[in-house]
Amino acid sequence: MALAKMSVADVEQFLRVEFPQAFSGDDIMIESADGQTCLLRQRFSEKMLRPGGTVSGPTLMALADFAMYVVLLSAIGPVGLAVTTNLNINFLRKGQPGQDVLAEARLLKLGKRLAVGEVKLLSGTSPDPIAHVTSTYSIPTV
Amino acid sequence: MALAKMSVADVEQFLRVEFPQAFSGDDIMIESADGQTCLLRQRFSEKMLRPGGTVSGPTLMALADFAMYVVLLSAIGPVGLAVTTNLNINFLRKGQPGQDVLAEARLLKLGKRLAVGEVKLLSGTSPDPIAHVTSTYSIPTV
Amino acid sequence: MALAKMSVADVEQFLRVEFPQAFSGDDIMIESADGQTCLLRQRFSEKMLRPGGTVSGPTLMALADFAMYVVLLSAIGPVGLAVTTNLNINFLRKGQPGQDVLAEARLLKLGKRLAVGEVKLLSGTSPDPIAHVTSTYSIPTV
Amino acid sequence: MALAKMSVADVEQFLRVEFPQAFSGDDIMIESADGQTCLLRQRFSEKMLRPGGTVSGPTLMALADFAMYVVLLSAIGPVGLAVTTNLNINFLRKGQPGQDVLAEARLLKLGKRLAVGEVKLLSGTSPDPIAHVTSTYSIPTV
Repeated sequence: MALAKMSVADVEQFLRVEFPQAFSGDDIMIESADGQTCLLRQRFSEKMLRPGGTVSGPTLMALADFAMYVVLLSAIGPVGLAVTTNLNINFLRKGQPGQDVLAEARLLKLGKRLAVGEVKLLSGTSPDPIAHVTSTYSIPTV
Repeated sequence: MALAKMSVADVEQFLRVEFPQAFSGDDIMIESADGQTCLLRQRFSEKMLRPGGTVSGPTLMALADFAMYVVLLSAIGPVGLAVTTNLNINFLRKGQPGQDVLAEARLLKLGKRLAVGEVKLLSGTSPDPIAHVTSTYSIPTV
Repeated sequence: MALAKMSVADVEQFLRVEFPQAFSGDDIMIESADGQTCLLRQRFSEKMLRPGGTVSGPTLMALADFAMYVVLLSAIGPVGLAVTTNLNINFLRKGQPGQDVLAEARLLKLGKRLAVGEVKLLSGTSPDPIAHVTSTYSIPTV
Repeated sequence: MALAKMSVADVEQFLRVEFPQAFSGDDIMIESADGQTCLLRQRFSEKMLRPGGTVSGPTLMALADFAMYVVLLSAIGPVGLAVTTNLNINFLRKGQPGQDVLAEARLLKLGKRLAVGEVKLLSGTSPDPIAHVTSTYSIPTV
């Protein structure tokens, strides 16, 4: 796969304009993005949790979907109309109490019309993922 | 499958106590739940949308996950520790502008340890689903 | 959705030429196909079973994938190069001993580039599905 | 995760007795299995292909499902009644003409009741997977 077409700073600037809802920039940080992988961090907050202390499914699904979009943007440049067509998530473990959630995304395929990737969701410093996602984005053709 | 073990009013009361984050009761209403199916309505708000006017993926995933939990509660009674193990979503269409989102959930299997269901997500009065979800819940054994 | 672009006889003739491996016509019959749904029947044979008498996963996945292709062909006409991009299957129940397996496929979306459908897999005359599949096909553009 | 509870030779012997349909041992070889990962090789044959030279979906799904069972057996020992509950596959690329197909499976979670894993399907010596699978097995409790 090719080099990144957007730096982390470029991706952030694009998202602040195009995706103000998803990326207020307060609780989610893009730690890296290189055209093939990216790493996102979502700061811990009580709002993430469901009863029992598990990180909620919607928190993890939203973060994974966003991580896939970030790695795709870094790979193809500023394309606003890419849309998720499929997302599959397996929930694996409870997270560590009070820890940030990390999303490690990686492109498995970057085609002209479809991009497929996987995302590992991690809690704090534990190497065992709390959830695993595969997802497909449809890329608009010009 | 058996009759409902909780009425809609029972499910709502349980959720207000156990799931205050997911169910404030302001924007999501449980219109029906009978132990095998349920129907939820999420009132339209601008916050649902991503750029281009599409209902956002996280909104749809969260609503579908919640609908599966509601139909499961209505089937098995007040079990707080059931957790989603898998969720697969296919995004199909943009919704109608300004319309509520509806979630029609249906149990495909209710086993002792696992429940599997499908959820159609609809926009306003259109019969064509905007997304389709299948999901598995793990049921704690006593 | 539009009417069928190929009749069952047309689809069968196309498949005998283009897909001799999948469709020898001996054990799988296309009972109907109307551009939006189709019904396939796979005659029972011992080869379908895994130990314990369950219909094997690969048998069900292959039949569901084929049913999606049949309903798609009936909808778009003789397009040889459509390929599956995603398939998700939930296994729900053991089948009835000695019974045929039926696949009821239905298109959820027929777009220009992607078609999404669901398939219920049934055993004999039981109304409870033994497995449920959602699947996406990529349609080549001319 | 713990060490393997069965060696490759143990797994093969178990499968020849319990799974004669899936494991004739002629075309699929277990190259390694260590309780956490396994590697299978399916020898190339024309029967694998669909028109256009793509490795057929059912071939890949069957091999991935089998690889998940092999890694699970190596992790938990000779448990005949473990069954797949969910399998999700993304098809990514055509394979290399005339090449063997390899399946690299890895457990993401080994719980008491559920095991979740992922499988990369590879063609010949290319590092780019032709398909990616996640799958869940239900483990019988004694």
